[in-house]
Amino acid sequence: MNLPNCIVAQSGGPTVAINASLVGVICASIGHYGTVYGSINGILGILNQHYLNLTELAASGKDTLQRLATTPAMYLGSCRYKLKDYHEDASDYEKIFAQFKALNIKAFFYIGGNDSMDTVLKLSSYADSIGSNIQIIGIPKTIDNDLMITDHTPGFGSAAKYIASTLLEIAHDTIIYPVKSVTIIEIMGRDAGWLTAASALARNSYCSAPHLIYLPESDFNTESFVEDVRDLLTVQNNVIVAVSEGIHDSNGNYISAGENSSDTFGHSQLSGAGKALELLIRASLPVKVRSVEINILQRCAVHLSSATDLKEAFLSGEKAVSLALQGVTASMVIMKRTSDAPYTITYDYAEIKNIANEAKSVPREWINARGNNVTYEMLTYLTPLIQGEVPIAYHNGLPNYMDVSHLSSQA
Amino acid sequence: MNLPNCIVAQSGGPTVAINASLVGVICASIGHYGTVYGSINGILGILNQHYLNLTELAASGKDTLQRLATTPAMYLGSCRYKLKDYHEDASDYEKIFAQFKALNIKAFFYIGGNDSMDTVLKLSSYADSIGSNIQIIGIPKTIDNDLMITDHTPGFGSAAKYIASTLLEIAHDTIIYPVKSVTIIEIMGRDAGWLTAASALARNSYCSAPHLIYLPESDFNTESFVEDVRDLLTVQNNVIVAVSEGIHDSNGNYISAGENSSDTFGHSQLSGAGKALELLIRASLPVKVRSVEINILQRCAVHLSSATDLKEAFLSGEKAVSLALQGVTASMVIMKRTSDAPYTITYDYAEIKNIANEAKSVPREWINARGNNVTYEMLTYLTPLIQGEVPIAYHNGLPNYMDVSHLSSQA
Repeated sequence: MNLPNCIVAQSGGPTVAINASLVGVICASIGHYGTVYGSINGILGILNQHYLNLTELAASGKDTLQRLATTPAMYLGSCRYKLKDYHEDASDYEKIFAQFKALNIKAFFYIGGNDSMDTVLKLSSYADSIGSNIQIIGIPKTIDNDLMITDHTPGFGSAAKYIASTLLEIAHDTIIYPVKSVTIIEIMGRDAGWLTAASALARNSYCSAPHLIYLPESDFNTESFVEDVRDLLTVQNNVIVAVSEGIHDSNGNYISAGENSSDTFGHSQLSGAGKALELLIRASLPVKVRSVEINILQRCAVHLSSATDLKEAFLSGEKAVSLALQGVTASMVIMKRTSDAPYTITYDYAEIKNIANEAKSVPREWINARGNNVTYEMLTYLTPLIQGEVPIAYHNGLPNYMDVSHLSSQA
Repeated sequence: MNLPNCIVAQSGGPTVAINASLVGVICASIGHYGTVYGSINGILGILNQHYLNLTELAASGKDTLQRLATTPAMYLGSCRYKLKDYHEDASDYEKIFAQFKALNIKAFFYIGGNDSMDTVLKLSSYADSIGSNIQIIGIPKTIDNDLMITDHTPGFGSAAKYIASTLLEIAHDTIIYPVKSVTIIEIMGRDAGWLTAASALARNSYCSAPHLIYLPESDFNTESFVEDVRDLLTVQNNVIVAVSEGIHDSNGNYISAGENSSDTFGHSQLSGAGKALELLIRASLPVKVRSVEINILQRCAVHLSSATDLKEAFLSGEKAVSLALQGVTASMVIMKRTSDAPYTITYDYAEIKNIANEAKSVPREWINARGNNVTYEMLTYLTPLIQGEVPIAYHNGLPNYMDVSHLSSQA
């Protein structure tokens, strides 16, 4: 039996679930593809002919795959490489499809977020234009939860669980002093407020934090903000505020204490919404104030990940392979929620042209009228995604993750 | 049997182990003291006659105490209240000892760091001056690990484990892009570099991060720093730097991007060493640069705490009670290390006058000559302190900590 091969790659920003999807692809490929090639640093690995043999890796046993599934960020490395329109410059495409031919590739799986789905769309269009029968399938991954059509994205649930748990711990940290204080927590999310909304999951019978939540989907007004904080301080000592990095005023200007720069895809690299609000409160109210930027920890903390998320990431990887084997192409795996309680999900696919280069925002009706809290619908949506804990192995006091030294020789 | 009572209180900054010491005090007191009073917000609780009955709490069962021992920050609340010299103003002391008498108190246990030990010293001196036979015992607690005489302090090991684990996860997050980058991690530590040193525990067979470590015990030179980073970038893509918030130049000026303010005890409230170094690298080298301030997460993340640390915190609490029952006073519980491998500790005490208002720095010989790394002796010292994981209960996807709403009614 001479099976064709496949290639899998990972791209964009890290999550804690992206390797679980990789393991899903590897496991589902056994018996259907000969060799599973792992392209190092996303699409760049194909252009540079730099691969790992993942079939060999899988042969080292179930323990290895379990460990891989709970290792943070991309085991195969990532890239921020934007393919040109092939009508203008097809050279990258020619190289990539020549590699597909040379390696007897029948399917290409790209695990990533919005920008990676742009790559899936472009490769799919090119494949169609040359009459290639290679299956090209996107597997969703982003902590931002901003991919279209799918109910949510793998990686989001774990980041949400980390943020909510951390908020709860910060609430404990904050309540101990009998003095007035304001704590501002800046959470990732340039255009979409899903992650910041997840901070609301920290609330329980004794913890009402975060007391204020501001998302980019609602214009931010500094006067209303100071008023909201001042009001709360008349009835409680500690005010905890959760705020997206991408909050902006009604003219679209980011609330930021620092300067912006841009990455390859033209994103603003924001920092400073939390710091800006800290300075604002410091100038407006006579209270102790602190800002905390959760920063990259929210996307790499496997030690506190959601079992639901990692399972769904794995199953999304498996689904991609089964779709390819059915002849589906130019598509992305999606999840459809069939019930909130009990929480049930089915796996399906959607055409990539309806997903790439679009972003899913928080519906305005899931934010309260004043724009400083989320609604019950949001909590109903979020709660199932953070359920379950993932036991990880420790060695000598530290998480025992997979060796990623194959990525460090890229200097 | 009419047993005398005791009071326990917690003070200073949060740790994840301070409630384990509280549980140690409660457990050891059963059968020896009638009621264990918990003073709310440190010594302020005695001045305000605001107590919890911890004997009643303990009666609700072992599960409650287990949950309490793994709840972050102070269950009894904290304070930053500095007692005046009683020669100048004895009014606080008179109130406190009147309360001791009114409540039939035979022992007072104060769980805290340097400032709390100043309170233990002052109360002890006053007790001596009035011929009181009340035992006054300090129980060490600080993530800073800067208390004298004791080998280390409860709370430190868990913060060290959190920092090392987080550093390892950040290393995974950072290695994925095939581009030059510098990541600067700012860690707590105003005067002592113990916590920043603990970042070195992240190193393993495939991870050499952090590649540079700067502690306040060694003067920081910005030119040498840029040179160190530039040098490393010639042999590797990603440079990860761990830096204490309190690094300063040879004139004692803090390396900081922001302004300073002071708290009750005259500490500078620093922020910005990491941000300052980020701006410096950005201005000096053509690479991607990011700074991450681990911030208060390092002192409240019970979800990733050291079993060794929590056990030692509990035993320190127990030891304090047994010392008081032996008639010891004006002292603090200390740990003596009797062996590194196997790691063994004995519990003893030291006179509070030799501890209060002193701080234990990292020995200069545990830092390399260039001042950008720690030595093997440091790793030998640190490694045992982060061993073991603590299973915590989850409810609905979040850590199931103790209700602390009794602290929120203090507005």
